[in-house]
Amino acid sequence: MGRRFAAEGIGSFFLFAAVIGSGIMAEALAGGNTAVALIGNTLATGAILFVLIAMLGPVSGAHFNPAVSLVMALRRDIRWSDAGLYVFAQIAGGLIGALAVHVMFNMPLWEYSLKSRTGVGQWLGEAVATFGLVLTILATARHRPTLVPASVALYITSAYWFTSSTSFANPAITVVRSLTNSFSGIAPSDVPAFVAAQLVGAVLGLTAAKLLLAEE
Amino acid sequence: MGRRFAAEGIGSFFLFAAVIGSGIMAEALAGGNTAVALIGNTLATGAILFVLIAMLGPVSGAHFNPAVSLVMALRRDIRWSDAGLYVFAQIAGGLIGALAVHVMFNMPLWEYSLKSRTGVGQWLGEAVATFGLVLTILATARHRPTLVPASVALYITSAYWFTSSTSFANPAITVVRSLTNSFSGIAPSDVPAFVAAQLVGAVLGLTAAKLLLAEE
Amino acid sequence: MGRRFAAEGIGSFFLFAAVIGSGIMAEALAGGNTAVALIGNTLATGAILFVLIAMLGPVSGAHFNPAVSLVMALRRDIRWSDAGLYVFAQIAGGLIGALAVHVMFNMPLWEYSLKSRTGVGQWLGEAVATFGLVLTILATARHRPTLVPASVALYITSAYWFTSSTSFANPAITVVRSLTNSFSGIAPSDVPAFVAAQLVGAVLGLTAAKLLLAEE
Amino acid sequence: MGRRFAAEGIGSFFLFAAVIGSGIMAEALAGGNTAVALIGNTLATGAILFVLIAMLGPVSGAHFNPAVSLVMALRRDIRWSDAGLYVFAQIAGGLIGALAVHVMFNMPLWEYSLKSRTGVGQWLGEAVATFGLVLTILATARHRPTLVPASVALYITSAYWFTSSTSFANPAITVVRSLTNSFSGIAPSDVPAFVAAQLVGAVLGLTAAKLLLAEE
Repeated sequence: MGRRFAAEGIGSFFLFAAVIGSGIMAEALAGGNTAVALIGNTLATGAILFVLIAMLGPVSGAHFNPAVSLVMALRRDIRWSDAGLYVFAQIAGGLIGALAVHVMFNMPLWEYSLKSRTGVGQWLGEAVATFGLVLTILATARHRPTLVPASVALYITSAYWFTSSTSFANPAITVVRSLTNSFSGIAPSDVPAFVAAQLVGAVLGLTAAKLLLAEE
Repeated sequence: MGRRFAAEGIGSFFLFAAVIGSGIMAEALAGGNTAVALIGNTLATGAILFVLIAMLGPVSGAHFNPAVSLVMALRRDIRWSDAGLYVFAQIAGGLIGALAVHVMFNMPLWEYSLKSRTGVGQWLGEAVATFGLVLTILATARHRPTLVPASVALYITSAYWFTSSTSFANPAITVVRSLTNSFSGIAPSDVPAFVAAQLVGAVLGLTAAKLLLAEE
Repeated sequence: MGRRFAAEGIGSFFLFAAVIGSGIMAEALAGGNTAVALIGNTLATGAILFVLIAMLGPVSGAHFNPAVSLVMALRRDIRWSDAGLYVFAQIAGGLIGALAVHVMFNMPLWEYSLKSRTGVGQWLGEAVATFGLVLTILATARHRPTLVPASVALYITSAYWFTSSTSFANPAITVVRSLTNSFSGIAPSDVPAFVAAQLVGAVLGLTAAKLLLAEE
Repeated sequence: MGRRFAAEGIGSFFLFAAVIGSGIMAEALAGGNTAVALIGNTLATGAILFVLIAMLGPVSGAHFNPAVSLVMALRRDIRWSDAGLYVFAQIAGGLIGALAVHVMFNMPLWEYSLKSRTGVGQWLGEAVATFGLVLTILATARHRPTLVPASVALYITSAYWFTSSTSFANPAITVVRSLTNSFSGIAPSDVPAFVAAQLVGAVLGLTAAKLLLAEE
């Protein structure tokens, strides 16, 4: 049992470290060309998602994301009490990942982000991004389970580019990214609306999957 | 039955949103380096194609493209009446995807594109692009069905770069891209010739596949 | 029987078109940043290789390369007379691919390349590149046949960057690339030494594979 | 028996050549945009890792890395005497790869690197990078053995970006990279601390894998 929570924690450590660390590296090297920085950020994020889902999926399901744990609890794939522990492990592991990255890059252990990310456009972006993520997970797991690592990795790879919010799509990483004043940061005051949009998108994604896959 | 059309509509929503949205994002961030923008556009398009074909292929066949639906109807893999409904779902779903992206990026809901894309070179590009797409689908489905998602995604990834038209290869997305005045747009007056070239390429691709695969 | 040669011709058409066409597109858009251009060229080449080997491998073996056909004839996997027809199909199909790309991009049908590619460093690059390509094909086909499309595509993806010659590794494409005065071109007078280095590398690769795989 | 050491030597030849050669090529072409150079370096490294593990894994296990050979000896998957020969083959093959690349690019056969890579941040980067690499190898091999080539390749793809040290994660390549005064170099005096951090990370990764996978 403890192994499942450890897997969520370790996976979130590497996922959040990859998202935040590659953002710092990419911005530092890109000489002001933000698209080049986003290419580096995208490669690092998509690649680590494949790895983590491939190696930890069989242990914990490889959520690394409270929106996914919520959906799995609503589907009764995991117990509500376990979902709570999952979310705790995701935030704790991911936070340690962020702190480790800050040490690596000689930055303060944590700093509130000053990057404003707000407005109807970005909220729609987060809702669509999370809707698509949940649908990708549920539909691929149903029809092509061996393709789940590649599909989730490539979904986020794409969503980084086609949503105006660059697709956080994950309440835990949204909270932790408010604690890094770097490329991937988000101002703390903008976090609640992002999380709300993500949860709306997740529930709609679950509903769409039920209709599309004709599950009972 | 309705699930198949829903799958075509949802898939086209995400495919068209990815193509148009990533074009907007990439151009906005690339600081005038169009090759960098096209790299971002390519990554987003190829990645979402893999995801959508992997998760929706078992539901609807994952056409998202009237040229593909035409070929499947000519092969009698789907009925002509279903092909018509497929095309309607592709245009409707894709159009909603374009509108959603425009809201995300705080742009007008729709605007006619001013980007001229015309001339014999680009028409040949569209014919070759669609010829290769149809051949890829039919030959891979015949010999290596599990590789169809990767092959179609990587075919378009490549064709974005080796055709002078950047490979629309899809009449529905050509129509919808005339309604976005952004990186991926095409002036409405240039649409008919692109669509004609695509349909010629598709029928030639079907013919080549029949000869190459010795189907009856 | 004719289908095998048709497959070599069609595959070479798309492979050579992808290499040359993406070079033209990438250089035109990259604003003088050659590394950005090479990224686009690499993506297009690696992606089309996966597609062509996945869909045509079961038909013809998907050589698209006289050095590979030579190795297969030396191994007696194909007859010498067939190897000759393969090479003819590769050059003819690939040449048509180059011409088609030139039409697409409104360039002269063909022009001799003025790009000098010569010297011991580049010849060593071609020998190493072809040695590795042959070893990749033979060792992957022996141990993990389903991974051949991905392995060959990714080998060339890497070799574009780690060899000073950008890894032509294919006598037929070397000849055809002497007829395009664009990013991927090579001056005709530099072709013979490249081809010689490629053939030396191919034979050494066959020898290494025999020792490493303990074939008789 | 000799084939296993030959496989480690040949694999290390291509891996080290790809890392160093693509760094030289990328820096030469990138016009001062280091993020663009790192994208090229990343593509070449990740791609060759997939190829080498796919084709040589069944022969030798495809370590190419003394930290991995140490872990495998600690797990008693290979004998200590074999681990010693593996490390010799890795350094010898990799060194020849570096020399070959220097000849290709018309550089001195070898030169000490002048690039300083030091400090607590980078040492933590190396420890985390190697910890994650060992965990990826052991956990993927346990749960999804067919995904090992992709997972290791994508892990390094990501770690190049999220660690401040750009993830050497390999004592043999660290030593050899001290002998190239180019993009991927490291000053010889900075090598011992990198190697120490890598070995600490490797042993911690082995411990974590034992706990997470409940091995005995």
